[in-house]
Amino acid sequence: MLAVRSRPLSRRVTPLVTLSIIAAMFPLSLFAQATASTSQPAGWVKEFGTMWTFDAPPLAYWKARYGFTPDQAWLDHVRLSSIRIPGCSASFVSSAGLVMTNHHCGRDCTAGASPRDSNYVETGFAAASLGDEKKCANMFADQLQSITNVTDRIRKAVTATTPAKQVEQRNAEIDRIQKECAQQPTEVCEVVTFYQGGMYSLYKYRHWTDVRLVMAPEEGIAFYGGDPDNFTYPRYDLDLTLLRVYENGQPLSPHDFLKWSANGAAENDVVFVTGNPGSTGRLLTVAQMEYLRDVDYPARLAGYDRLLRIWHALAAASPEAARTYQNNIFSYENSKKAVTGYRAGLLDSAIMAKKRAFERDFRKRVEADPALRAKYGAAWDEIARAEKEMASFARNLQWQSFGGGSNLLNIAGGIVRLPSQGALPDSARLPQYRGAGLDRIRQQIATIPVDTAFERRALAATFAAWKEALPATDPALVLALKAGGGDPDRAAAAIIAKTTLADPAARRALIDGGASAVAKSTDPLIAIARTIEPVNRRLAERAAKLDAVISSNAEKIGQAIFAAYGTSLPPDATFTLRITDGLVEGYPMNGTVAPYKTTMFGLYERASDFDNKPPFQLPDRWAKGRDRLDLSTPMDFVSTNDIIGGNSGSPVINRNAEVVGLIFDGNIESLPNRFIFTDEVARSVSVSSRAIVEALRKLYRADRIADELTGGR
Amino acid sequence: MLAVRSRPLSRRVTPLVTLSIIAAMFPLSLFAQATASTSQPAGWVKEFGTMWTFDAPPLAYWKARYGFTPDQAWLDHVRLSSIRIPGCSASFVSSAGLVMTNHHCGRDCTAGASPRDSNYVETGFAAASLGDEKKCANMFADQLQSITNVTDRIRKAVTATTPAKQVEQRNAEIDRIQKECAQQPTEVCEVVTFYQGGMYSLYKYRHWTDVRLVMAPEEGIAFYGGDPDNFTYPRYDLDLTLLRVYENGQPLSPHDFLKWSANGAAENDVVFVTGNPGSTGRLLTVAQMEYLRDVDYPARLAGYDRLLRIWHALAAASPEAARTYQNNIFSYENSKKAVTGYRAGLLDSAIMAKKRAFERDFRKRVEADPALRAKYGAAWDEIARAEKEMASFARNLQWQSFGGGSNLLNIAGGIVRLPSQGALPDSARLPQYRGAGLDRIRQQIATIPVDTAFERRALAATFAAWKEALPATDPALVLALKAGGGDPDRAAAAIIAKTTLADPAARRALIDGGASAVAKSTDPLIAIARTIEPVNRRLAERAAKLDAVISSNAEKIGQAIFAAYGTSLPPDATFTLRITDGLVEGYPMNGTVAPYKTTMFGLYERASDFDNKPPFQLPDRWAKGRDRLDLSTPMDFVSTNDIIGGNSGSPVINRNAEVVGLIFDGNIESLPNRFIFTDEVARSVSVSSRAIVEALRKLYRADRIADELTGGR
Repeated sequence: MLAVRSRPLSRRVTPLVTLSIIAAMFPLSLFAQATASTSQPAGWVKEFGTMWTFDAPPLAYWKARYGFTPDQAWLDHVRLSSIRIPGCSASFVSSAGLVMTNHHCGRDCTAGASPRDSNYVETGFAAASLGDEKKCANMFADQLQSITNVTDRIRKAVTATTPAKQVEQRNAEIDRIQKECAQQPTEVCEVVTFYQGGMYSLYKYRHWTDVRLVMAPEEGIAFYGGDPDNFTYPRYDLDLTLLRVYENGQPLSPHDFLKWSANGAAENDVVFVTGNPGSTGRLLTVAQMEYLRDVDYPARLAGYDRLLRIWHALAAASPEAARTYQNNIFSYENSKKAVTGYRAGLLDSAIMAKKRAFERDFRKRVEADPALRAKYGAAWDEIARAEKEMASFARNLQWQSFGGGSNLLNIAGGIVRLPSQGALPDSARLPQYRGAGLDRIRQQIATIPVDTAFERRALAATFAAWKEALPATDPALVLALKAGGGDPDRAAAAIIAKTTLADPAARRALIDGGASAVAKSTDPLIAIARTIEPVNRRLAERAAKLDAVISSNAEKIGQAIFAAYGTSLPPDATFTLRITDGLVEGYPMNGTVAPYKTTMFGLYERASDFDNKPPFQLPDRWAKGRDRLDLSTPMDFVSTNDIIGGNSGSPVINRNAEVVGLIFDGNIESLPNRFIFTDEVARSVSVSSRAIVEALRKLYRADRIADELTGGR
Repeated sequence: MLAVRSRPLSRRVTPLVTLSIIAAMFPLSLFAQATASTSQPAGWVKEFGTMWTFDAPPLAYWKARYGFTPDQAWLDHVRLSSIRIPGCSASFVSSAGLVMTNHHCGRDCTAGASPRDSNYVETGFAAASLGDEKKCANMFADQLQSITNVTDRIRKAVTATTPAKQVEQRNAEIDRIQKECAQQPTEVCEVVTFYQGGMYSLYKYRHWTDVRLVMAPEEGIAFYGGDPDNFTYPRYDLDLTLLRVYENGQPLSPHDFLKWSANGAAENDVVFVTGNPGSTGRLLTVAQMEYLRDVDYPARLAGYDRLLRIWHALAAASPEAARTYQNNIFSYENSKKAVTGYRAGLLDSAIMAKKRAFERDFRKRVEADPALRAKYGAAWDEIARAEKEMASFARNLQWQSFGGGSNLLNIAGGIVRLPSQGALPDSARLPQYRGAGLDRIRQQIATIPVDTAFERRALAATFAAWKEALPATDPALVLALKAGGGDPDRAAAAIIAKTTLADPAARRALIDGGASAVAKSTDPLIAIARTIEPVNRRLAERAAKLDAVISSNAEKIGQAIFAAYGTSLPPDATFTLRITDGLVEGYPMNGTVAPYKTTMFGLYERASDFDNKPPFQLPDRWAKGRDRLDLSTPMDFVSTNDIIGGNSGSPVINRNAEVVGLIFDGNIESLPNRFIFTDEVARSVSVSSRAIVEALRKLYRADRIADELTGGR
């Protein structure tokens, strides 16, 4: 799945802070070859991928590689046919405002539009007429109108000399630019930071909020193969939702929409994908990647496993329990698979060698100029030093904390911490307690519901982890285990039995009682939290300082790279519109070759291979309708386009800007692309346009919609 | 493909030389736990696999693991239903002597039985009646009658004190045993060496030579997916030949044959495979495995690539050329895939860790007893030292030689070497020139045909390799390059133009002329060979000495292990009958799960995925007959049985000894099983018994045969 996930991938996100006015002054002559033309293939480093912005299309590269020379009208048409919806991408696919996106992108709409006694997510839905189309709550569609480079304006607004003041000035100017731009409720404006501050652009969107559900197949076919097949290929999914944008209660008639290809995608076709990739880390240094590989990701994966063990145990109790925990299990299995894939790339010595080579080269160029060396030469080593120090106490930071999965322990930590943080001036607080953070935390702590069965197990797992990670004399560990005679399980049970924090009223009383109430409390979790709090605060403050070092140096590196390469290297993903080029191509897989496409035969193959057991069970409509289908119809296909979470629902188009497919996933080999782009075996996975029409006509009795897509063909 | 291949896997094969009379004296008490019962699961080390001999079935282990307790009648019935044919395995599957094996095992028979204007390998064949069944040339069927332990008799016969004399006595005794045993032309007897000399068994077979072709499908379906899908899964092959054994011109009525299962294999079924695995290396030491991993296999793989580049270049010239070189290309691609897979296991740190742990443990036990330590303690280090020394000049041995792929260079080397080797006493010659070797080499040299286009490229590639591997002053290199002004390509072209060795008469003249003719020859290849010969001879003699050290120490280790574990560890494969247990089970693959079975849907899926292009093109009969088939019929399936080359054609049977499948391959993850058995993702791949019947009835109009298999069901 490629929607942008709410859980952030990394503890440290791309910084949006400070800027050094370096890019403009950077001596370009040093990189003459690389920057001779920003759209020459020569200036492109493949590992940075192909997520091009619409204001810097690599025309010379496309011409050299594919003999493809789109004019500005082609680019404008494609841009205006593309749509951003919450967390996903989409496109106009008819003159009457029909919008194509993924099933998982329209899921909330589909569920919300369901009648009381049924669920369209399970049963599928196809509106028989315009009047039957269902309004979606909280859905919108944004169409990118214009991109304006505002780098100079922002740089000029920043006149202060202290970093804090610089941030303030910059944010204020961004606010001003956005407000000036968005004059109407139908306009949305965002200033986007590229290259970690190397470039700022104003993105202006046309914004629609009347979006209606036209058609969604059963989740059983949209997400066929479920969790096992997620992130893999060969695949047999019809991951589709069709929506329609309305304006003034009538279907919108967009000037630009993508026409339907008569033949779909053929092997070796050049194809383009437009959409909003969410986040990549291709500008990270080797040291940052190594930290992720060796410290951050292993801890994260262990955490997923810890929680998955708990949910699996709870789910095993009854079918009802299985339903309750199914979403948690799926979500964490999904994250585990993704992070395992990201880490696999960082563990791949061939992939890392490319990254090292780039960094070595680039640093050499910086080192060769004394002025540059003085300014930026230290940045990589500064980051490496900070990462190394961070690693030295990462285990303590992780476990001398309120973390580990128990919400109750986390709540206890918040209750203990709130009075002291509240007493500090804003700038002296821990980052998450600054500004509106304090009130938000107080509100969450007071209201969050608690699942006691889960809490007991989560607490036991946390105590067991403490026992392994911390010295036997650690005061919090001693206090925790005392409750269970040294045994984590018994300790957790005893503490859960005694604590009152499951009751929101008890929490509120402690919050309202402030520091003295906390100090006097005999609640066992509060007692443990009191012991942890000062230790954890010192560790968190140390980590925050190191994060700042890393952020400011990462910024320098990002800006230096941008100054050197300009837009010939596409910027890291920012959940804004990009266009990526690629080829429809199979790849070597597991000793043999994966085909460029699958067909409907394969859907029935996989179902019968697994004796039609979930998640390989066919929806009834598909099981019964088999003989109506031409089973040789292409179902899904793969291409070398550069996509990531946020690209869900992106159209795949040919040279004529006709729809041949619908992006819905990447193969497992594409996960390392988060950091270093490769296309030897990494592939994007799309629904074939032909499968969409075949299914609409033969199974969903939806000729009305199929005709609208194909122009009646 | 799992037939025993004629090209040996390893330069050094399991030794059949000398023996130390240690096993009988080995203090079993030291390993009391492991040897308490030779059939207890406790005495089994999983990494040694499950290729059990019929005289040591692991009854307690089967009972503990599967609750399966076959009686002696079951074992006898299964043994007598199993058949060995040239290079492959097979089984009786009807009361009228019908024999089931793989398509690739019956290929020569099928080709030879074809009429002049057609080829049954391509068109398929099904005899309409008994009278229509076609006699196979050079085919035989051997049924294992009895196994007799002859270890004591052989030990007693060996009374000499020198190793050479010991070998002679032992071989003479083996000859005597075999001759005494095989009194009739219908009897074949072999003494088999197990555990590198830890145990000797006499295998006595009933031997039939009238074997006829009953049915073979098209190679296009038998080997569907061709080279890419070879060694992989999911798979869609009907790799089947049906033969019939005749006696006195009538179909044989075997007392024992396997009945057909009505339902085939279901998920998690316990299944057994009987057959003749050819060769494994599970007794090798870590040092031997590391030598293969770091020296032998990389050189071998580079060699395959060198030759493949040449053949691909030659094949590109014309469709005619493509046909000429197709077999070479296939054979070497196949070897490359296999060796890459073997090496992958040796590169897998988790797999090697198991091997290391076993070796460390076992050595510790030997070290713990002073007497044992004195006798066997040094064996591992002796091998490691020899392998290390071997590695130190492996590059010289490889390139200061007549190797590299050019037959002409090899011929020149033989011509130069024959006179000097012929002049030596037999025992002083290089190993391959001893005994009948000298005459064989002389004969080969005089007659082998030469493909000049290939030779020019092979010679150029060899010279290029010399240039890279040897110092610029190497005399042979200097001499070779002189012919082309320093350029390998031009040198090869010039030498090929000038040499007369392509002409067998010229070779014969040099052979007949002896040493003085060789010395006087001005042929450029003879000149180069004269320069190489003395250097290579010294290297070869050094390598032979090290090989002897490795062989004798490997023998000690094998015998020590046998003495400790007995038959609770199955011996390395010896192309004799084994029975292996396993489960029908899917496995984790490429981020998702591979199903336990495939169905006929998948055959049509794969064909349409690849737009019906070779090697995924369907045979006509299958393309046209699609609607007659029930596409949900299981096609192939996987199980955890322990198989390797030689197991081709093995039956897969259930607890009732009914046929549920037909082994034809292993998945790519099973290749490392050559050295260390694992079953997490390694799988055997079989044709489903149900696919055989479905195809016979619906596509081959062969109800006669299907009824015979199923008893008319």
